[in-house]
Amino acid sequence: MTGRAELVSTISGRKYPFDRIEEFAENGESLEVSLPGLAHARPRSSPHLWERFGDFLPFPGMNPARSLGEGNTPLLPAGRQLHEWTGLPNLLLKNETQNPTWSFKDRGSLTCMFLADFLGERVAATISTGNMGHSLAAYGARAGVKVIVFVPGFAPREKVDAMAIHGATVLRVEAPDYSAMKRHVLGLAGALGVRIVSGNGPVRVEGYKLAAFELYEQMEGRVPDYIAVPTSACGHVRGIFKGYRELREAGLIRSLPRFIVVQARNNNPITGALKRGDEQIVPVTDVRTIAEAMTTGDPPGGEEVLRKARAFGWLGEDATEEEILESQRRLAAAGFFVEPAAATSLAAVRSLVRNRRIDPAATVVLMLTGSGLKDMDVLRHHACGARTSSLSTVASDLRAVLAERTSESPGTLPGH
Amino acid sequence: MTGRAELVSTISGRKYPFDRIEEFAENGESLEVSLPGLAHARPRSSPHLWERFGDFLPFPGMNPARSLGEGNTPLLPAGRQLHEWTGLPNLLLKNETQNPTWSFKDRGSLTCMFLADFLGERVAATISTGNMGHSLAAYGARAGVKVIVFVPGFAPREKVDAMAIHGATVLRVEAPDYSAMKRHVLGLAGALGVRIVSGNGPVRVEGYKLAAFELYEQMEGRVPDYIAVPTSACGHVRGIFKGYRELREAGLIRSLPRFIVVQARNNNPITGALKRGDEQIVPVTDVRTIAEAMTTGDPPGGEEVLRKARAFGWLGEDATEEEILESQRRLAAAGFFVEPAAATSLAAVRSLVRNRRIDPAATVVLMLTGSGLKDMDVLRHHACGARTSSLSTVASDLRAVLAERTSESPGTLPGH
Repeated sequence: MTGRAELVSTISGRKYPFDRIEEFAENGESLEVSLPGLAHARPRSSPHLWERFGDFLPFPGMNPARSLGEGNTPLLPAGRQLHEWTGLPNLLLKNETQNPTWSFKDRGSLTCMFLADFLGERVAATISTGNMGHSLAAYGARAGVKVIVFVPGFAPREKVDAMAIHGATVLRVEAPDYSAMKRHVLGLAGALGVRIVSGNGPVRVEGYKLAAFELYEQMEGRVPDYIAVPTSACGHVRGIFKGYRELREAGLIRSLPRFIVVQARNNNPITGALKRGDEQIVPVTDVRTIAEAMTTGDPPGGEEVLRKARAFGWLGEDATEEEILESQRRLAAAGFFVEPAAATSLAAVRSLVRNRRIDPAATVVLMLTGSGLKDMDVLRHHACGARTSSLSTVASDLRAVLAERTSESPGTLPGH
Repeated sequence: MTGRAELVSTISGRKYPFDRIEEFAENGESLEVSLPGLAHARPRSSPHLWERFGDFLPFPGMNPARSLGEGNTPLLPAGRQLHEWTGLPNLLLKNETQNPTWSFKDRGSLTCMFLADFLGERVAATISTGNMGHSLAAYGARAGVKVIVFVPGFAPREKVDAMAIHGATVLRVEAPDYSAMKRHVLGLAGALGVRIVSGNGPVRVEGYKLAAFELYEQMEGRVPDYIAVPTSACGHVRGIFKGYRELREAGLIRSLPRFIVVQARNNNPITGALKRGDEQIVPVTDVRTIAEAMTTGDPPGGEEVLRKARAFGWLGEDATEEEILESQRRLAAAGFFVEPAAATSLAAVRSLVRNRRIDPAATVVLMLTGSGLKDMDVLRHHACGARTSSLSTVASDLRAVLAERTSESPGTLPGH
């Protein structure tokens, strides 16, 4: 930490002290951490990313025992099949599914635990149907912080169990709709003094920005032209952008990447507004998409992201249900099994290339946000599965499979 | 590669040329790679583990495009709760669930692809009910190698789908029992010239030994007293041991870790023999354990592991079904959600401490072999799940949860 941190309301610019940190400003605006002295911030030597970039973080103490080994995820060339399919020879995949609970959320949960230490908080609560609740449950278990997760009535049992086995208390709230449930719980928690961690809160943004620092290291100081981020509550895209902006403030890079905000076509309050040129979000009320990790129909950071998009030339693109499934299949056929939400960005960048909105020579990073194991139900939409043999037919079945190979793909081993 | 590699039969010592590599010797013995000149092998500088330790690997070329970013997994202190429960203050967790397909198998699949490049093979096949098939499917997809996975009739649909979405051909073979199916497929594949990759094959062992090199780096040259490895086909424990032996041959370390071979009590051909002092494996025919990733009742590398255990003072311990479930829950309560097979080693080291077979001051590494997401069915055995609220009861339910916290755990934040 280089100086005294403050919280800044992202639209009005109003400032708040960091030690009374809230998830949102009183008027509902997104908050972000402001740290003076970043011009002199420098990476240091440490095995831990958060220590190397400690000058850029607002926490006065960061206990390594809070970490579950998040981050340090691979950045890989997408491979020939995906280069050809998207038309982008410089397409890179940042595989956030290799985090401790197999989604990008873990970076934000680490900083939530740093905050809990700072404020002496012993309880963290959230409203979640999946990745966020699972990640916070694991980090709370590690840190000895009690975690409460409010889930809607429709949350599948296995997602609930994956949170509960970490020792989190899961409260399944039956309510007419998810939005009403969220409003009720937020009001209630406020009255009881319980922090409801939001995916768009300023402390999670500090965690997500660590991905920018990691990309900076992995690309040896080069800045990609674009970073595509599946977007629901907005904290992820805000965090990665904030990281790059701070690297520039420190003089470590000169330019910023442009962001591609990606949503499902069936739930596109932000990308819809971006494509129409609107300045306001129109909330989506009846969210129905296979990209279940992106269920926020009225994203709390949406207006802020629209402002950023205008100011910094970001793009927005969404993917239809069919495109999401095809992208999931194509990523798997290239070696990467991701959940549907994570697959949206592959479809989106392909559309942007075809519509000539991004240059095929651009270097584009896709954030693969969550593991395919998180949603096995969706596999029923794919025509995969097994062929059935018996001991008497397996020989002829194997011969048939081998013959397919021979006729189909002589010499298809992709080079590097 | 420092010299000309050969294959050595681990019991008879008979040698074979490396370019006609087989999974087993003609008499069924395990094979391993022998590389001359290891006394002069040295780690080099590279971002890739396999390049840093290239002197220790037998492949004449290693194409980085084959990698999915395997390895580079965290090594973490287990945390206060697990230190107390096991009685081991120096217990470390090596979290192999953060691999590309969320199990340790990926390290072996990488070297399988290096071998395919070396031999010009375009097909890789295996017999698997889960992790091995999934991992090979993903790496084959990345490399453009056709993958065929033979699964038994009882393989659950979701495990099959996770392989098939990567483009692997899955042949579900209905047969009276799994062993009969394996024998039939092995004979058939031999006749058709298709390699059936074994979890105990010499090339997978070369991949698993990379975990030893990574531990060597992460522990800055120190050698743990014990490494506990859940063991089914034996390739994993053989590989990590081989890595340490080669580090000693190169003069980089002086002592070797002792290994703890871990199995489920319900399927303990190796640990049963070790505990009885037998020199022969008694195969288990009717395997019934919740540790589904360890289904090999007649492990192909078993005799070799028994010999190694006698020669190097290894230990064997197994875990009951109840102990496996409790270990899974305790690992999750410390932040780590692993599949039942991966949880066996926590129970095993606890038993060994209680029976005074390992010194509580020892440094012990547990290999967390696979993600809990790989087997969500098992969660029904845990008394977890959600409490159900409604909009009218959630306030009192939340108050009750908060009160539980206060009475239960004042001051329980663990220090580092």
